[in-house]
Amino acid sequence: MTDRVKVTGFGGSLRKKSFNRALLYECPALMPENSELTIFDISEIPIYNQDNEIDLPKPVKDFKDAIRSSDALLVVTPEYNYSIPGFLKNAIDYASRPADDNVFKHKPVALMSASVSILGGSRAQYHLRQVFVFLDSYVINKPEVFVTLANTKFDENLRLVDETAKGFMKQLLQNLVSFANDLKKLEKK
Amino acid sequence: MTDRVKVTGFGGSLRKKSFNRALLYECPALMPENSELTIFDISEIPIYNQDNEIDLPKPVKDFKDAIRSSDALLVVTPEYNYSIPGFLKNAIDYASRPADDNVFKHKPVALMSASVSILGGSRAQYHLRQVFVFLDSYVINKPEVFVTLANTKFDENLRLVDETAKGFMKQLLQNLVSFANDLKKLEKK
Amino acid sequence: MTDRVKVTGFGGSLRKKSFNRALLYECPALMPENSELTIFDISEIPIYNQDNEIDLPKPVKDFKDAIRSSDALLVVTPEYNYSIPGFLKNAIDYASRPADDNVFKHKPVALMSASVSILGGSRAQYHLRQVFVFLDSYVINKPEVFVTLANTKFDENLRLVDETAKGFMKQLLQNLVSFANDLKKLEKK
Amino acid sequence: MTDRVKVTGFGGSLRKKSFNRALLYECPALMPENSELTIFDISEIPIYNQDNEIDLPKPVKDFKDAIRSSDALLVVTPEYNYSIPGFLKNAIDYASRPADDNVFKHKPVALMSASVSILGGSRAQYHLRQVFVFLDSYVINKPEVFVTLANTKFDENLRLVDETAKGFMKQLLQNLVSFANDLKKLEKK
Repeated sequence: MTDRVKVTGFGGSLRKKSFNRALLYECPALMPENSELTIFDISEIPIYNQDNEIDLPKPVKDFKDAIRSSDALLVVTPEYNYSIPGFLKNAIDYASRPADDNVFKHKPVALMSASVSILGGSRAQYHLRQVFVFLDSYVINKPEVFVTLANTKFDENLRLVDETAKGFMKQLLQNLVSFANDLKKLEKK
Repeated sequence: MTDRVKVTGFGGSLRKKSFNRALLYECPALMPENSELTIFDISEIPIYNQDNEIDLPKPVKDFKDAIRSSDALLVVTPEYNYSIPGFLKNAIDYASRPADDNVFKHKPVALMSASVSILGGSRAQYHLRQVFVFLDSYVINKPEVFVTLANTKFDENLRLVDETAKGFMKQLLQNLVSFANDLKKLEKK
Repeated sequence: MTDRVKVTGFGGSLRKKSFNRALLYECPALMPENSELTIFDISEIPIYNQDNEIDLPKPVKDFKDAIRSSDALLVVTPEYNYSIPGFLKNAIDYASRPADDNVFKHKPVALMSASVSILGGSRAQYHLRQVFVFLDSYVINKPEVFVTLANTKFDENLRLVDETAKGFMKQLLQNLVSFANDLKKLEKK
Repeated sequence: MTDRVKVTGFGGSLRKKSFNRALLYECPALMPENSELTIFDISEIPIYNQDNEIDLPKPVKDFKDAIRSSDALLVVTPEYNYSIPGFLKNAIDYASRPADDNVFKHKPVALMSASVSILGGSRAQYHLRQVFVFLDSYVINKPEVFVTLANTKFDENLRLVDETAKGFMKQLLQNLVSFANDLKKLEKK
């Protein structure tokens, strides 16, 4: 009997009709067996100010607890101005503080993005990969999920109707859970 | 007679005892003749939400007006988790919206950073350079200003006491103003 | 009467049936009036070894002379392993030496790439942009030319048959020549 | 009884008095127990040309064999023009071909660099990290080894005399071997 792998997903976008938010909400149904994805809403996380890091605001504490109790993370990121959106980077910045309590350490991380452009959010993902070097997380290499030309791949209810994209997403989530399971096996030895 | 070159500076950090905030406040005294640097405080800019971009919050409107009426920009950036701080990226994201009113377009931009590490914020600056490709700004190449080991270069009142660093800062501000003057000349022709 | 703007183009790929080589050879016909593009073949440039930089090999000297006498540069780059191809980076490395004779300094540079992938070589271009920060060149921001899904856009004779791509290429070459002309005007003042 | 972990190291620089070459040659003595580092000289690898990839040149075959039979890799990289040196990227490009024989796949990789500058080669390392995303290798996150101000840390015989740097190097090599051992354990299950 294996333990279930618990994954926390976050990101998307704060606006309601966001393709990235829609992408995030497609993922729970695509998880492999013996795993579950819980979505954490980061919209309540305030702007980080180091003067307040001794007493973290409740949404930040909750976010850190969710990450800490997860075996793996899923980050769904829009691309703003060729990089990580400020609101998403801010949530990661706050959750990474204080420096001696890095909840991201050694967590496997999967990245996804959707974009109406042909580059599909890739520039935001490569910047995120560099962030996770500092945070000492394990970002899964393959498959990379870039949902390009997103306006043609979601229906009017913002449901993803592109089976190729879904196939890549399933494979990435499978690889994420598999990596998390490997880490569990190594800890038990 | 040449017009004065107006530069808006922003960034720093929201905490009070920030080396980057201190660095930003050193700059007005280092400006070349016939130029002036006004610092814009971005701490009131709320988290960007595309649903609100038709009616921008007042601090965002003020920030955009400051940028629009400037001949050049100075961004002083800390490095958080090997990239641009979320709060700073968020301010740039908000000011860049809506897409048909890009106030950063064709503005010359100078970057500076301070850090207690040996890499001096360089990773944040290279990510910012990519952001300004999208925004179609002109980021000055040289000299790059990375104030490394910042804790040894500011005194107890957070005044910069390193003359080498000041020399590079002056040169960068000179190059920024010179580029802005060149753009003015070309427009007049 | 304005001087003709002289542009040197290089890059492509060493193999004969390369889309990037084909892309480079489309460009002379797309140049704006009062400008000309000469293609420099970098295939003879040997691997850089700093021990030989006092007496540069002839192909490197020729490459440097071509760059030095140009008003602007065009680099057409494939993407190898998510970055700049080694052979192209090596040619740039060699031409940039010795350090006190940087022929790239203050040259306007345009980047293009073709790729069978959907990302179109963008990762190689962003790495090249960082290289040209060091070399103190002016890389044109817009439009970015990424010829994606290249196998659908060239005919059997490797002629580009995509008019949208050609439009972007013309605009980029126009912006490159226009920037070079602006630099000439400023020098004359 | 555990198998010895075999590591192949490469990179350095082609010139004789290179700090990076010296750094590479310090590493065999710093390896943990039950591991060994063999240095592969990439100076004979010719410039990659896809037309020749069906019949690879002997130095490329040998390089690929060395990588294939290794449990982990060490890449010691100078920084040329804010990125990976062309000669090193070219060796990686050639060894990665043809695409259906990716010998880098799932290999743990450690990166080191030395530089006379204060940034210590970090820009080359971050570009290499992106290369290894494509190649599907596992680049070790920590500690990052940047030997800054290298001219002050090697003696006249090019021996490293900085104990702090050696400590970081030992720790990185330990983490590399430990990761390789974990992969072996998982394969055996």
